[in-house]
Amino acid sequence: MPEPLHIAFLLFPDVTQLDLTGPAQVLSRMGNVTLDLVAKTRDPVRTDALFDLHPTATFAEVPRADILCVPGGFGTVAAMEDADTLDWLRQVAAEATWVTSVCTGSLLLGAAGLLRGYRSACHWGSREQLAWFGAEPVAERVVFDRNRVSGGGVTAGIDFALALTAAIRGEDHARFVQLSLEYDPAPPFDSGSPERAGAETVARYRAMAEKFAPGRAETVKGIAERLGF
Amino acid sequence: MPEPLHIAFLLFPDVTQLDLTGPAQVLSRMGNVTLDLVAKTRDPVRTDALFDLHPTATFAEVPRADILCVPGGFGTVAAMEDADTLDWLRQVAAEATWVTSVCTGSLLLGAAGLLRGYRSACHWGSREQLAWFGAEPVAERVVFDRNRVSGGGVTAGIDFALALTAAIRGEDHARFVQLSLEYDPAPPFDSGSPERAGAETVARYRAMAEKFAPGRAETVKGIAERLGF
Repeated sequence: MPEPLHIAFLLFPDVTQLDLTGPAQVLSRMGNVTLDLVAKTRDPVRTDALFDLHPTATFAEVPRADILCVPGGFGTVAAMEDADTLDWLRQVAAEATWVTSVCTGSLLLGAAGLLRGYRSACHWGSREQLAWFGAEPVAERVVFDRNRVSGGGVTAGIDFALALTAAIRGEDHARFVQLSLEYDPAPPFDSGSPERAGAETVARYRAMAEKFAPGRAETVKGIAERLGF
Repeated sequence: MPEPLHIAFLLFPDVTQLDLTGPAQVLSRMGNVTLDLVAKTRDPVRTDALFDLHPTATFAEVPRADILCVPGGFGTVAAMEDADTLDWLRQVAAEATWVTSVCTGSLLLGAAGLLRGYRSACHWGSREQLAWFGAEPVAERVVFDRNRVSGGGVTAGIDFALALTAAIRGEDHARFVQLSLEYDPAPPFDSGSPERAGAETVARYRAMAEKFAPGRAETVKGIAERLGF
């Protein structure tokens, strides 16, 4: 039996649920794993995908974990403004073996002061904002820096989780998990990065982001200043 | 505003949650979408990833949908033996514009008699079992045959959902969704298909599958015979 591992995923309103459910699928196959979806309360949490996820525990119930994993999404900014959320992240990160994020979850780790001097990935649309929290933005799909491990936008969480599985359980096990999930991706289009998608699709994304979260970059900058970065 | 779409995902115990949450993430971005996770009862449903998903509706509450989507997983076999589940699938499929599946969800559609004479994808480990239900197994990641659309194993659900998005909302919209999800996959290993994973990893998968669901293929064959295929 491999070493037991407890994984704590942060859950907050308007999370991009695939940032969490992708890695959870992969990491749950590491063997001898327990997993919590942790939120302020046990109330159902609205995701960006038109259904709720239900916390399995509250902040108070999960003071530590072997792996801390923070997803992102449009709700990230509100979560960054919540002192209880940042306090919990600091508490769990202090003793965790791995402190990880997917997508704009890295901004949350940043706001908690957990990425000062660390290299980190982020969703391409918000990546440069990491610098406001003293982190070094990296345009890669998976980034390891000491015990900080991060994935890029949303679907990068699957690549991230396979890489983390390999780091913890070895490459052979990661290859087994990859086969079990038939992860042999064949995107029908070549539009997964701003470089490949073309100017028109990028402009459309920026317009959607501005519509759903007006002035988001300015808000994040203000948060960084208020938090003393 | 694009045409409204209602999507019904089947939910059953021991579902592979990424079969559902991957497509749900993509399809929820089609615009003007509502979505239900539909099960026999409103009780929480155990997934294979160590957390529950919560139904948003029961079979009786969702008699029709524009898109029916059936995920797979180790719980598929028990679901195939449940007459209420098969009845609901037949009822919704009869009026749905699109009848779809991911992973071994295609076996469930097959058991409901919905794939007779259709080409379909499936998880590589169970693909040939489709033939017992009168379907033609296809070793592709996404398969369209008239209004039946299917994805291969687990992560193929993301490719499937992008292809379906393009069919419904057009390629430009699908490319926008792909960019928003930063779907530019870079698997850390080349182990996503039995052809690439190598004999040892394939054997390890088969041993795990046999451990978790002993004699599964024989059981599925028996179900097909009992259902009169």
